[in-house]
Amino acid sequence: MSLLLVADIGGTNGRFGLVEFDAEKIGTNGQINYTAERQITLKCADYVDMATMIRTCCAKFGVDIPDYACLAIAGPIENGQASMTNLNWKFSIHGLRDQLGMKTLHVINDFASLAYAVPFLKENELVTLYESNKSNPDAPIVVMGPGTGFGMAALVPSQNNWKIIPTEGGHASFAPTNEKELDIKSFLLKEQSHVSVENILSGGGLVTLYRALAHNSGVEAKPYSPADVSTKGLANEDPLCREAVLTFCDVLGEVAGDKALSVGARGGVVIGGGLTPKLMGLLPESHFLERYKNKGPMAGYVSDISIRLIVNDKAALVGSAAWLIHNTPELKAH
Amino acid sequence: MSLLLVADIGGTNGRFGLVEFDAEKIGTNGQINYTAERQITLKCADYVDMATMIRTCCAKFGVDIPDYACLAIAGPIENGQASMTNLNWKFSIHGLRDQLGMKTLHVINDFASLAYAVPFLKENELVTLYESNKSNPDAPIVVMGPGTGFGMAALVPSQNNWKIIPTEGGHASFAPTNEKELDIKSFLLKEQSHVSVENILSGGGLVTLYRALAHNSGVEAKPYSPADVSTKGLANEDPLCREAVLTFCDVLGEVAGDKALSVGARGGVVIGGGLTPKLMGLLPESHFLERYKNKGPMAGYVSDISIRLIVNDKAALVGSAAWLIHNTPELKAH
Repeated sequence: MSLLLVADIGGTNGRFGLVEFDAEKIGTNGQINYTAERQITLKCADYVDMATMIRTCCAKFGVDIPDYACLAIAGPIENGQASMTNLNWKFSIHGLRDQLGMKTLHVINDFASLAYAVPFLKENELVTLYESNKSNPDAPIVVMGPGTGFGMAALVPSQNNWKIIPTEGGHASFAPTNEKELDIKSFLLKEQSHVSVENILSGGGLVTLYRALAHNSGVEAKPYSPADVSTKGLANEDPLCREAVLTFCDVLGEVAGDKALSVGARGGVVIGGGLTPKLMGLLPESHFLERYKNKGPMAGYVSDISIRLIVNDKAALVGSAAWLIHNTPELKAH
Repeated sequence: MSLLLVADIGGTNGRFGLVEFDAEKIGTNGQINYTAERQITLKCADYVDMATMIRTCCAKFGVDIPDYACLAIAGPIENGQASMTNLNWKFSIHGLRDQLGMKTLHVINDFASLAYAVPFLKENELVTLYESNKSNPDAPIVVMGPGTGFGMAALVPSQNNWKIIPTEGGHASFAPTNEKELDIKSFLLKEQSHVSVENILSGGGLVTLYRALAHNSGVEAKPYSPADVSTKGLANEDPLCREAVLTFCDVLGEVAGDKALSVGARGGVVIGGGLTPKLMGLLPESHFLERYKNKGPMAGYVSDISIRLIVNDKAALVGSAAWLIHNTPELKAH
């Protein structure tokens, strides 16, 4: 029996889980349980770096630092160096492993982990937002969505397995598609030279949308937090917050279609991240689906692609566990 | 010795080639010659359908319809059905094969074919537009570019080989990034509900840009063709044509960066298609590179990715030949 530490560390929260993995037990029933029985969530802002956060986490679990771990993080990983875009944390994977005395440490992108989880999620962990029975099992699946940032990864079928393509598609330029959105982009371009999808589709993006809508309506913006905008928008307590959350849903539909086209995701669109489950009730009232399909000569192409939403906020832990078990020869899993 | 018909059929021209392939010869020198010795180009508009075009092509070559062929076409292929987006041609691959009496017919997306050619292109068939020595050989390469339409495909490393991901990224929404481009999009949104990258970055897009710039300057647009706009723009004979071609280069830089982010193309950006080689001389004068790198917190990410331009306009024939030879067991190639 091996103890595995798995984690999903975004810009705001670090979710940690402990998985008891026994390679002997797989042979008998053929199934692996990727779900962490014990889980805790820590606030990233309370820690100076990743090592300190992991040490505190293990102390709270009451265990020594496990030999095997997989961290899913919000940010790119390149040449063994991990950068957490929204936290200004950078670390070397081998350095962190040695510092913590681990045998094996994998660090993967959080949406790569979410993508890797998709084939292992149970039916009740996914909600169908748009149904199509024409999904192509030989084509890529794209997983994306707003949280603290906007994550994105593609899952490409490869020889009876899946290959993950981590991407930074949330940082591509935001494409406004009506006069209201053109005015929003115009307002934001006065503040920064690059206005990305993530600048709109994220927690901070909700506030940005609210501020831009207020400015363009000649109203003074209140100092709302992302939670204020979503709460007041959902409850229809403030017309500008309402417009912000509806615009958010519209842009999410536009982007879901654009990204499906850009990665040829005829296997399906899967939306993850913390924000969409909260706003899900608004989607039918917004132009989410209309915008998803508004792709000119490619309207038919995207109409053949289903959209599912991950409603288990610990799904990336499942992906991290599966990744760790499948990619650690010592753990001898299939 | 087998005779192979390879083709690259865009919205305007169909380029055809004949490759003499001898599986016996590979064993001795280990190299395959994917270049078609005999080539002809036909105008698509002169033919009612694909079968007629291929019959005419073989008659011109003075050969019977070959047993083996691979057609690279501009448009999506799904469930054995090919759609040529800019020609309104649709056909069943098996139907066409049987109609022509071929043994094997592959039909692949033209940018998929271009992507598949990249590893087999010679040095003088590629020009480096932006150099970086940090390209990651384990990451995807993205191949894209403007011609009659805007094609795009990703090449994903997979077990000592390449997997092609055909995409329709040219049909994603156009993201304007300064006031001039916001005005262009605003003007075009009055004509159509979806304004795509391809609506700007294509031959027709040059005219569209010229029309929009003329309108927004209060000038009456002349009935220019794409060639008029590029010729007059390159020669600096008409200030609006000049602005159109420079804007085109700016947007190409923006889109190259956006697509690199969206497919995580840390292996490289490759630009293909007929238009860019013609406009290449303008790139340094435009904001092409500045726009490519203008990605906020991801400026470093894209700065690590090189950009190369395919300058052999028959490169898709090389990709078609390689694809046909590698994917036809009867041809017994490695």
